[in-house]
Amino acid sequence: MKDLTNDNLTETVIDAFSGCAEPRTKEIITALVRHLHDFAREVRLTHDEWRHGIEFLTATGKKCDGIRQEFILLSDTLGFSIVLDAINQRHEEQSTESSLLGPFYRDGVKEAEFGADIAQTEGDPAVFRGRVVDVDGRPVAGALIEVWQTAANGMYEGQDPDQPEGNLRGRFHSNAAGEYAFRSLKPTSYPIPTDGPVGRMLVATGRHPMRPAHVHFRIAAPGYETLTTALFSSDDPYVDSDAVFGVKSSLVVDYVPKESHFDVERDFVLIAANRS
Amino acid sequence: MKDLTNDNLTETVIDAFSGCAEPRTKEIITALVRHLHDFAREVRLTHDEWRHGIEFLTATGKKCDGIRQEFILLSDTLGFSIVLDAINQRHEEQSTESSLLGPFYRDGVKEAEFGADIAQTEGDPAVFRGRVVDVDGRPVAGALIEVWQTAANGMYEGQDPDQPEGNLRGRFHSNAAGEYAFRSLKPTSYPIPTDGPVGRMLVATGRHPMRPAHVHFRIAAPGYETLTTALFSSDDPYVDSDAVFGVKSSLVVDYVPKESHFDVERDFVLIAANRS
Repeated sequence: MKDLTNDNLTETVIDAFSGCAEPRTKEIITALVRHLHDFAREVRLTHDEWRHGIEFLTATGKKCDGIRQEFILLSDTLGFSIVLDAINQRHEEQSTESSLLGPFYRDGVKEAEFGADIAQTEGDPAVFRGRVVDVDGRPVAGALIEVWQTAANGMYEGQDPDQPEGNLRGRFHSNAAGEYAFRSLKPTSYPIPTDGPVGRMLVATGRHPMRPAHVHFRIAAPGYETLTTALFSSDDPYVDSDAVFGVKSSLVVDYVPKESHFDVERDFVLIAANRS
Repeated sequence: MKDLTNDNLTETVIDAFSGCAEPRTKEIITALVRHLHDFAREVRLTHDEWRHGIEFLTATGKKCDGIRQEFILLSDTLGFSIVLDAINQRHEEQSTESSLLGPFYRDGVKEAEFGADIAQTEGDPAVFRGRVVDVDGRPVAGALIEVWQTAANGMYEGQDPDQPEGNLRGRFHSNAAGEYAFRSLKPTSYPIPTDGPVGRMLVATGRHPMRPAHVHFRIAAPGYETLTTALFSSDDPYVDSDAVFGVKSSLVVDYVPKESHFDVERDFVLIAANRS
């Protein structure tokens, strides 16, 4: 028999997965085991703390239902989701950085014309315009641009029964010069749900639940990597402390006051699709 | 504002916990965040795999109820629980190694006399005897020795309504020479519960759910660290592949056949309590 001791526990556990027929599953679970064990050893986790963790995970599972997903909220608030985004979004020096897709994206939104107004509720009018380009600055014509954002009450259409169908959701294509433009509202900051274990974790660790105001963008064009990102408002009090870590400095924009609206000008830089 | 980019996500998340008032909470969550992020980066986790993980954790939470604790089962089968035991059990070269307390320990068992028989159900009779000593081999008199084990059907008293109160549970004190002895049964291997997400994880990774036959020991004496351990049967087919990784080579014992019973002789070596 193997020489099993307190000193080779991790290797023993990893060995137990050696018969796993699916190599990717084996790779993932091996890395997970190693990091979980290293975490426990590094902080010298006590049995009381472990029990606390078991209770927290159990309560998080119990909070999940058809519409509420507390484990995704946990992933978001521990920054796991944004790291996942960074891993899966290719990035080159000149290209636009990514941000979280979030739970409020939906497809099936009606196509609108260049410059159309997507707001059906009240708020501070804003005009968004710019170009979709490649890393060499060449226009990308016919790119599909999807946008979605909160209304003045901090809620998304779909989340809020009082908002008209399709409110503050847009679907456009860039023109021959790669340009896009639409009218909308200046978005509002809002809290993630706080009435569950994740909310209690935020309180216990001295964190607030707010996301800074932002407009989501998803930009797809043939021959390019699809870009999932967002533009954050520079004047938002939470822009430096997003509860789910979606903000990149390069995605923070000024809402420039004009006579009747705010103006946001912003280009998006796509990366050519990997042909490998 | 800070220069937030894809390259400093982990530091940004850790910074978010800088206002945590409780230093130990901060230490634990910081280490957890770092290991979770490193894990995701190391395996380049995809969104599909992440979704799979979210669903697994959710189902694990849903499986928990007043008697079933699927997250503890997960902790056990990933070897997290045994690492925790190793961290929290002090060990010196000569001292007896630790093993899992498990979910079937209970106190309030009636004290029995030296040599008493704790079996009230049928099985292969076995006699356990030996000494409780310190690391220099000196006897520890008056040590409290608690033992518990499965019946021939692989179930513990408390888990199995058909077993008499206190079956195969013993509570003894070592005599002036540090000696203990009791009669019981040769224990039986048994499966951990497999009708939940953890059972599906074992199947998906090519693992079996069996624990090798063992007798639990908990030994406490004034001036010594309490020892939680178990003795495993050398002839058990699962002794080299315990589903929850409780086996240490030094805890494997032979059941020596005698005319009317099996004989197990084993000393336990305690460490002096830390007076710091």
